[in-house]
Amino acid sequence: MSLQGNAIIGQSGGPSIVINASLVGAIEAARDSAEIETFYGALHGINGILYEQFIDLFREDHELVEQIRYTPSAALGTSRLKPNDADLDRCMEVFQAHNIRYFFYIGGDDSQLACHRISQLAKVSDWDMNIVGIPKTIDNDLVITDNCPGFGSAARLAASAVQFVARDAEAFGNVEVIEIMGRGAGWITGATQVGRQEEQYAPHLVYLPEVTVDPDKFLADCHEQFDQWGYLVIAVSEGFAFAESDTPTTSAKVDEFGHARLGGVAQALSDMVEDELGVRSRFDRLGNLQRCFAFAASQVDLDEAYAVGQNAINRACAGESDVMITIQRKSNEPFVFECEDTSLTSVAGKTKVVPAAWINEEQNGITEEFVAYARPLMQGRHELLAPGIPHYPRFQKQMIAGKLSEYVRQ
Amino acid sequence: MSLQGNAIIGQSGGPSIVINASLVGAIEAARDSAEIETFYGALHGINGILYEQFIDLFREDHELVEQIRYTPSAALGTSRLKPNDADLDRCMEVFQAHNIRYFFYIGGDDSQLACHRISQLAKVSDWDMNIVGIPKTIDNDLVITDNCPGFGSAARLAASAVQFVARDAEAFGNVEVIEIMGRGAGWITGATQVGRQEEQYAPHLVYLPEVTVDPDKFLADCHEQFDQWGYLVIAVSEGFAFAESDTPTTSAKVDEFGHARLGGVAQALSDMVEDELGVRSRFDRLGNLQRCFAFAASQVDLDEAYAVGQNAINRACAGESDVMITIQRKSNEPFVFECEDTSLTSVAGKTKVVPAAWINEEQNGITEEFVAYARPLMQGRHELLAPGIPHYPRFQKQMIAGKLSEYVRQ
Repeated sequence: MSLQGNAIIGQSGGPSIVINASLVGAIEAARDSAEIETFYGALHGINGILYEQFIDLFREDHELVEQIRYTPSAALGTSRLKPNDADLDRCMEVFQAHNIRYFFYIGGDDSQLACHRISQLAKVSDWDMNIVGIPKTIDNDLVITDNCPGFGSAARLAASAVQFVARDAEAFGNVEVIEIMGRGAGWITGATQVGRQEEQYAPHLVYLPEVTVDPDKFLADCHEQFDQWGYLVIAVSEGFAFAESDTPTTSAKVDEFGHARLGGVAQALSDMVEDELGVRSRFDRLGNLQRCFAFAASQVDLDEAYAVGQNAINRACAGESDVMITIQRKSNEPFVFECEDTSLTSVAGKTKVVPAAWINEEQNGITEEFVAYARPLMQGRHELLAPGIPHYPRFQKQMIAGKLSEYVRQ
Repeated sequence: MSLQGNAIIGQSGGPSIVINASLVGAIEAARDSAEIETFYGALHGINGILYEQFIDLFREDHELVEQIRYTPSAALGTSRLKPNDADLDRCMEVFQAHNIRYFFYIGGDDSQLACHRISQLAKVSDWDMNIVGIPKTIDNDLVITDNCPGFGSAARLAASAVQFVARDAEAFGNVEVIEIMGRGAGWITGATQVGRQEEQYAPHLVYLPEVTVDPDKFLADCHEQFDQWGYLVIAVSEGFAFAESDTPTTSAKVDEFGHARLGGVAQALSDMVEDELGVRSRFDRLGNLQRCFAFAASQVDLDEAYAVGQNAINRACAGESDVMITIQRKSNEPFVFECEDTSLTSVAGKTKVVPAAWINEEQNGITEEFVAYARPLMQGRHELLAPGIPHYPRFQKQMIAGKLSEYVRQ
């Protein structure tokens, strides 16, 4: 059903290099829509709705908005808050108080679930709304969509970093272990193998959380590769664990979604290899850079991110609701994609891991199918590289006056 | 004294983004010299000399050499080997066997010391040689020279990374601690403040190894900054320690120069701040990326590195010896420099720390003089950004036949 009224958009979960491209795609499409009267930007995701902290996106300078398109990290601020029932009721109150008929949420599978729950609530209330989820996750683990905006740039950063540190390891003739984000899905880590030009070059060994490897087999593989090439570069997902062992890397701390914080697997493997091979081994963790290091942005990723934002608005205004926008790959070379949509229930709370058929038999690398899948998503963009220290704009943030009493979260 | 014969060059210590620019500057100058008959490249620094592992640099394809100019990390391979007396004697034997009259070594203060010791040996032997050190260190801690090739690019990477992760921290409204290389000198860490545009932006607090800070003062500063801006970004040198404490970060392991391996201060500070402020805090370590992440290369740094390589050849061929090439700054805007030289004894084994006058009174940042010093060295270069995954060439490595019996190191 097509609705007339205001719209609101929020950004959720870990930011990415291209999450603002989705936001700007949405803003620019909303400006052209006949249905959306005012377009609000919720600050810090769902918090912005709960506490009526939102800005008027139509009053932001158009040229500045265009610059935000290429600005890494969430320009509206983000949050990992998991809304409870009272939060969702409050959201509905806020929507009604501000005549909000459209809700857009840019995020991963946890965020799509939040979206779907609000959608359900709207359906049983007497307040008609169209709600569309916009996919975003560097982890690339949303189901149904070909890939997730955010992944291509994170993959390009990781693959580039592997090539760079590999030259350092080669120069010394030693071992390097590089730890890459990925709790349960090894998409980014696997994609680093796209950078391997020939057998003798890095990354020599690639370990995803999807595989279970015996420590002895791991050390034998390290020996074999190091003895052949005189240096060794290992890419490993933060969620990787040996067979019959708990992840050696799980911290006691948890994030706001209740997930254990990871980190440490590269150091653990590096120590093991150094002891076994008797060769100096170093390790690096790409850490938060994977979400924000815009020098490594992918052009395809930026284009996809913009398109899903734009599509969300157009489909919602045309009457779609309770769906998430997806990417469909139409051709690999040149890379061509189209946007489609899928029901939120089909994606919410689900995780797409790397298929077993895309992992090699030795469990220490990926197949050519994976390379062919990931390579087109990892093309860079020259224009992103300001000659100075990179500075990016911020929204002017014209705040909207609240209409409800202060929210006290239970 | 001008000499006729062969020349050899090696790369030593930690690689940098621009160390190959120095090598290529030397190769291209050597091609034009009347004195140098064959120009050898020693593989893995001093090891290449000891074990007669060297390549003919004049037989490398000229176009490939030009590409190596922009290739990060040491194209000849590097080493941290500290030569003992027997090693130095062997070097002299090798030089005589191969009619080597010129020795060039690209490295930091430890490497310049090795250079000087060989220089002394040549002086007391009946084998005339001209020996010139080529400065290289991302740490920027060589004395006399205005700055060290390698620093500008490492500083640009670190300052860029701080800006990027700061946007991530701002989006969440939390704390980020970023750990930057620098054992005893905080040049790179200090240079991250060049990226701070206004008081409310990152990095809010900057801690160098040169300062001693009380933990209570540190936490008070964190409180003050976080309360004001709603997020907090701290840049810290890996060698930073609190007053009256040992570095909390020193590992039991040592490198080949006998230096303790560092790492861990960011995590320690991050945990402290999280406990004190009750806000989620993250940390990142830039690690080896600081030596190789060519996306962040500085054009001035590349130019300087090329010039010191070229100058080393020209000065040695003109009869200079036992000196290191230095950079003299002639103007800041536009940045103009000239090469000079200084005796190896004036630089070998010495360290230039950040002067106290360039650190602010609060001991948590740098002064405008430091910013003015570092800013011109940190200008980027667009052309370095291949649209694909970055791949760089390697030398073809035409090996030279050995002339001596195998070397067995004592």
